[in-house]
Amino acid sequence: MMYIKNPNEIEKRSFEIIMPNLKFTHGELELPVVLRAIHTTGDYEYENILRFKKDAVEVGIKALKEGCKIFTDTRMAYSGINKRTLESINCSIDCFVDNPLVFQRSKEEGITRSMAAVDIAAQNGVDIFVIGNAPTALFRIIEHIKNGTLNPKLIIGVPVGFVGAAESKEELRKIDVPSISTVGTKGGSNVAAAILNAIQYLAVERCL
Amino acid sequence: MMYIKNPNEIEKRSFEIIMPNLKFTHGELELPVVLRAIHTTGDYEYENILRFKKDAVEVGIKALKEGCKIFTDTRMAYSGINKRTLESINCSIDCFVDNPLVFQRSKEEGITRSMAAVDIAAQNGVDIFVIGNAPTALFRIIEHIKNGTLNPKLIIGVPVGFVGAAESKEELRKIDVPSISTVGTKGGSNVAAAILNAIQYLAVERCL
Repeated sequence: MMYIKNPNEIEKRSFEIIMPNLKFTHGELELPVVLRAIHTTGDYEYENILRFKKDAVEVGIKALKEGCKIFTDTRMAYSGINKRTLESINCSIDCFVDNPLVFQRSKEEGITRSMAAVDIAAQNGVDIFVIGNAPTALFRIIEHIKNGTLNPKLIIGVPVGFVGAAESKEELRKIDVPSISTVGTKGGSNVAAAILNAIQYLAVERCL
Repeated sequence: MMYIKNPNEIEKRSFEIIMPNLKFTHGELELPVVLRAIHTTGDYEYENILRFKKDAVEVGIKALKEGCKIFTDTRMAYSGINKRTLESINCSIDCFVDNPLVFQRSKEEGITRSMAAVDIAAQNGVDIFVIGNAPTALFRIIEHIKNGTLNPKLIIGVPVGFVGAAESKEELRKIDVPSISTVGTKGGSNVAAAILNAIQYLAVERCL
C-alpha cells in the first residue's frame, strides 16, 4: 500500500485539502486555529461554531511569548498539547486532576475534581486556561473571575457534551475576558489541545 | 450558578438526553458504544458513521473478560482510557510512542513512529488495537495481518482527518477481522478511547 508516511507532510497536505473547502473568510491569526480544529476532528463544522472574543489569538500569542502559566482540565488535553514547544518558549502547563489536594477538596466540598483543580489553579495564578471537557471547570473559572479571585489573560473554553457544556460556553462569552469557544455541544480535549497548539506555533513563527 | 456537579450524574443525564434524539435502532451491545461516541464528541453524526464488523462488541467483551493485551497509538487515547477498570479485569494497555526503540526504528526505516510502534506491538502480541489518530498505524496493522505476522481479536480503528484516514478505515473493513470504525474523516483519540471504555464497562456489567 502506498501512503504518505512523514507526519509533517501529512499535516501540510491536510491543511491544503481543508483550505479550498472553507466557506467563510477568516482573520489571518484565526485561520490557523480554525484549520487545526478541523484537522483534529475531521469536522468542517468547526468553521461555523468557533467564536473568538477580544482578539483572543493575538492576546494568546503575546502571553505565550512573554512566558506564561497554563492550566488544563484533563490529562487528555495535557497529552495532546505540544509540551516541547511550550518549554522552548518558557511556558509551563499543569493539570492538577491527579493531585491529592484535589481529591481531598472535591470530597470535602462535594464538588467535581475539575472544580477543585480550578480552585488550586486560581491560588497559583494562571494566565491561560485550556478547558476541553468539564463544564463545571469553566463555570468555576467564571465564578472566580466574577468574585475577583482570578484574572486570566485568555480562556480556551470548549467543553463538550449535553449537560451544561453549551451553557458554560455562553456564560464564558458574556464575561469581559478574551476567549476562544464553540457554540453548541461540540468541543473536547482534542479540540482544546489543537487550539492551544495552533496559538503556540503562531507564537514561535510570528513577530507581533 | 446552578449546575450538576456529580460526574456520574452528568454522564447519566447526558445519555438520557441523547437517547430520544437517536434516529436509528441499534443492537443492545452496540448502543452503549454509539451513546459514548456521541457523548464524547457532542456530535450526533456518530450514529450514522460508526461501523461494527463481525460482532465486534461481543468479541471485545469476551477478550476483555479473559484478560488481554491492548495497544493504542497515542498518549491522548491512552489518557482517555479508564486504566483502573482495565486493571481490575486483568487487562494491560501499552502505547510505545515514547519508547526509544520506536524512535530508532522510525529513523532507520523512514517510517512514522506510529508505524514503528505497531511493529513492536506485533512482536509482543496484541489482542485489541485502539487506533485514534494515525492512518499509518492502521495501514501497518493491516499489512501485518495480510502478511500473517499479526492476528488480533479486535481492531478499534477510528483515525481522524483528510490524509489517508478514510481510506485506512475502508481497508480495515475489507479484512476478515472484527472491527469498529467510522466512515469518512471523523474519528480521533477521544473517540477511540470512548469506544474501548464503552466495551470495558459492558465487560464489567454483563454476563455473556
